[in-house]
Amino acid sequence: MGKEKRLKIIPLGGLEAIGMNITAFEYDGSIIVVDCGLAFPEDEMYGVDLVIPDISYLLENESHVKGMVFTHGHEDHIGALPYILKQINLPIYATKLTMGLIELKLEEQNLMKTTKRKVVHPGQSINLGPFRIEFIKTNHSIQDAVALAIYSPGGNVVHTGDFKVDYTPVFGDSIDLQRLAEIGKKGVLALMCDSTNAERPGYTPSERTVGRALDQIFSDHRTGRLIVATFASNVDRVQQIIDTAYKYGRKVIIEGRSMVNVISTAENLGYINIPANTLVTLDDMRNYPDDRMVLITTGSQGESMAALSRMAAGIHKKVQIKPGDTIVFSSNPIPGNEKSVSKVMNELYGKGADVIFQDTHVSGHPCQEEIKLIYSLLKPRYAIPVHGEVRHRVAQAKVVRMLGYDDSHIIMMHSGDVCEICDEYARITGHVQNGPILVDGLGVGDVGNIVLRDRQHLAEDGIIIVVMTLGTASRQILAGPDIVSRGFVYVRDSEELMFEAQEVVQDAIHKSLRGRIVDWSKIKNAIRDGLSDFLWKRTKRDPMILPIIMEVND
Amino acid sequence: MGKEKRLKIIPLGGLEAIGMNITAFEYDGSIIVVDCGLAFPEDEMYGVDLVIPDISYLLENESHVKGMVFTHGHEDHIGALPYILKQINLPIYATKLTMGLIELKLEEQNLMKTTKRKVVHPGQSINLGPFRIEFIKTNHSIQDAVALAIYSPGGNVVHTGDFKVDYTPVFGDSIDLQRLAEIGKKGVLALMCDSTNAERPGYTPSERTVGRALDQIFSDHRTGRLIVATFASNVDRVQQIIDTAYKYGRKVIIEGRSMVNVISTAENLGYINIPANTLVTLDDMRNYPDDRMVLITTGSQGESMAALSRMAAGIHKKVQIKPGDTIVFSSNPIPGNEKSVSKVMNELYGKGADVIFQDTHVSGHPCQEEIKLIYSLLKPRYAIPVHGEVRHRVAQAKVVRMLGYDDSHIIMMHSGDVCEICDEYARITGHVQNGPILVDGLGVGDVGNIVLRDRQHLAEDGIIIVVMTLGTASRQILAGPDIVSRGFVYVRDSEELMFEAQEVVQDAIHKSLRGRIVDWSKIKNAIRDGLSDFLWKRTKRDPMILPIIMEVND
Repeated sequence: MGKEKRLKIIPLGGLEAIGMNITAFEYDGSIIVVDCGLAFPEDEMYGVDLVIPDISYLLENESHVKGMVFTHGHEDHIGALPYILKQINLPIYATKLTMGLIELKLEEQNLMKTTKRKVVHPGQSINLGPFRIEFIKTNHSIQDAVALAIYSPGGNVVHTGDFKVDYTPVFGDSIDLQRLAEIGKKGVLALMCDSTNAERPGYTPSERTVGRALDQIFSDHRTGRLIVATFASNVDRVQQIIDTAYKYGRKVIIEGRSMVNVISTAENLGYINIPANTLVTLDDMRNYPDDRMVLITTGSQGESMAALSRMAAGIHKKVQIKPGDTIVFSSNPIPGNEKSVSKVMNELYGKGADVIFQDTHVSGHPCQEEIKLIYSLLKPRYAIPVHGEVRHRVAQAKVVRMLGYDDSHIIMMHSGDVCEICDEYARITGHVQNGPILVDGLGVGDVGNIVLRDRQHLAEDGIIIVVMTLGTASRQILAGPDIVSRGFVYVRDSEELMFEAQEVVQDAIHKSLRGRIVDWSKIKNAIRDGLSDFLWKRTKRDPMILPIIMEVND
Repeated sequence: MGKEKRLKIIPLGGLEAIGMNITAFEYDGSIIVVDCGLAFPEDEMYGVDLVIPDISYLLENESHVKGMVFTHGHEDHIGALPYILKQINLPIYATKLTMGLIELKLEEQNLMKTTKRKVVHPGQSINLGPFRIEFIKTNHSIQDAVALAIYSPGGNVVHTGDFKVDYTPVFGDSIDLQRLAEIGKKGVLALMCDSTNAERPGYTPSERTVGRALDQIFSDHRTGRLIVATFASNVDRVQQIIDTAYKYGRKVIIEGRSMVNVISTAENLGYINIPANTLVTLDDMRNYPDDRMVLITTGSQGESMAALSRMAAGIHKKVQIKPGDTIVFSSNPIPGNEKSVSKVMNELYGKGADVIFQDTHVSGHPCQEEIKLIYSLLKPRYAIPVHGEVRHRVAQAKVVRMLGYDDSHIIMMHSGDVCEICDEYARITGHVQNGPILVDGLGVGDVGNIVLRDRQHLAEDGIIIVVMTLGTASRQILAGPDIVSRGFVYVRDSEELMFEAQEVVQDAIHKSLRGRIVDWSKIKNAIRDGLSDFLWKRTKRDPMILPIIMEVND
């Protein structure tokens, strides 16, 4: 990087799919970073636990990176931080609840002592090098979300983070539209606005509407146990469930590790208000009749190990689902989770419970009319749609075009693009290394395309191992060839096939040895080709074939 | 089975998930079967191509099975037939288009000569043993769908098949509500009604509404190429696209093997009306400007090998997506396909094309008001919700309860249940063998739980093979131990780990040999345990570990 007097915007992730949000801003040799999220693996990423961004660019410019600023406390915005802090030490800035959730992670990873942290309240600003960053109150499905106004001599950019416009939030204030308008009046070079719901017309309803739906459900279900599943991080939702439980005289049990963590953090920091004697433990459950309690639980996305999924599958240690139970899904399935959610619902119905899932959730992202509102308040020179898949960002571009923007003022970026931006132009002037780093267990980055291709191959058709011992001198087979398979066919039912496979292998080996081929790799290829042809013909399957030759001095 | 004078209803599949519809009806020692569908594999069925029903019960009673009757030509109702006909020879009865689609399959499998077939027109009846079966015109997302009225001395049952109420169908008549009312007047013991949309209030809109939406799209997009993706089997939809193309002066190209097959069958049988000189081939495409043609294609579900997916991925041999193209998804994603569909859309947007997917599809299944209408016309004594997952059937039960049915008149069955039914009662009196048979390549039933568990294990963490040659007499290691891994880590990046793993294995072997253990299986266990502990500690991963010992006389 040079000491150029041009503002550069470099999204290091998050523009190809949901999650892994991280964006660098650069001016005059200084860099700041907004958010540091993880993504969950795609279907074809077999066995991968998490995906984090490649921060090579930050590492190359380590001494220039002034700090990291966060918009809110969701995993796709803070989740990669512990992995990143092990590579680069940075001061971090966030609102109170966001910092509380970040600190949960830092404590787990023993990173508290080494990480400089500062809580910033909405309305306040911080200075980092040539940048001033103002935190502006917004609404989202987690409290303490902010938009960031990033002021620099090269121009001012507003990054909305994830947001919605909620005029009647459950906790705290509505989004600070006045301040956004004020900033807009002063002049905004670019707006980076949340696209997640940009395909949807109209407005996202207020979180408060869910409260009314919950009240109706509690009122309709005065007998029997109530179990409400929602996102662990949706503190306002949990607040509304607790308020409703209190009103209808039910004790509340919170179940699921992540929810217990988030809610206790929120309670410690004053973001949730739990009436005295309302919360009881799972073990206290037996002391209360079914119609006097409500369980709030994780698992609204059908995640296989979450509390509700274990209840539905009948493997939860302390909660058995039974007829008379009513389970409320206070959530919508995130795209990709529909089948898992349906599976859990089917299991719950199968155990005789009733399930409610309609009108019990609202989104935390802006629909088209809200996007128009934000653009109309900020009147940025350039629009840079962010957050969401390509389809969602294209949908925002369509909305923005309706507001009169032409294509030269709508910048569609890819992760890694370097956008140089000023009053006169905004253009992609370069590209930095980026892309997902796969985390599998403790391994970060040691699973790549070759390993994933192998896993996919193994998953589709299994593996056949052909092993034999050859004499170095005699060039005779001393032991084997043995054929071992896993994930191919159930061998006991396929004796004939495996017997013939054995003959095919023998044949391939003998031909190779007879041909005076001494090169083991040629024998291996002969086995692989012969067996592969045979199995495809007989089964139309293509297992991985792995010949192993051992050599013994004879 | 005995020669009981009670009607029995035995669903052999289709009640736990979508697909694999097949139901036996039994009276006085005679059996008839309705539909014979396949299901598509669940996510955890790694590598499996299809799922077909277990028909052991029919095989055990082969001489009593009088025939198979079909409601319509979708895969989940006819797809398993070739597999079943290889096990049991049965006469089959279906409407003209349904039979045409069945015959496509029988020809492929060389089953035409051996299978007795009869086309039955809506309004006609057939006699099979003590049963009379009347075919009643319905509407669905494929033509020639029928409900079946099954008359027997033990009582009359109406099976709706998949249906909707379309007062203004694109082709042919509306559902025969008058005849259903007439049958209802005479008395219906049980109604087996489609539950797929039972969670949705209101009515499913007419197929014709899609025609109006298509007209608007063609009118708005008079320049550039149009590509419309829909279900291969939705002949009416294709008809409407062709009609609209004709109106707007565009030639039509049909692309995708399954769609070409279905449309040519439909055309041969007179179910689609293609104006002369409208259809052109893919190779003719170059002779027409973009604004004079429309491509109708498969791939609306994001299926990885379908034509549209190949275009989106840039690997279609003859069609390259480019800016100016407009792709219309005339379909909704089937649950589970959301992410694949999004992936294709993102790729299309990424190539500069525009995508339209809203208001371009209607369902082929009845919503709550249609379900109420059918119950009100037929007034069955018992309700047996069918078609759909458990959640959908429970939703139908709720609708039926609103109509005044009590729980003793709503029969919630599981696949394999035997429901004995008469005026006085309807109860589950037994259970027959059932469950899915997995088809993988040419193998039918040779992939079971053990193989699937192995494939899942391999997919998650890969495999490590430890192979060595031992001397029989010396009990010395003559070669190895060698460690080979696939799908675990990229070995070149993990040399140290693999080196240490080698030491762990050596250690385990030496301890076993020193302990005078001659039992190979104990050495194998020692290797497995030692390596498994080591790898979990170091990587938090649990690959499959496969020790192989070869023995050589020394």
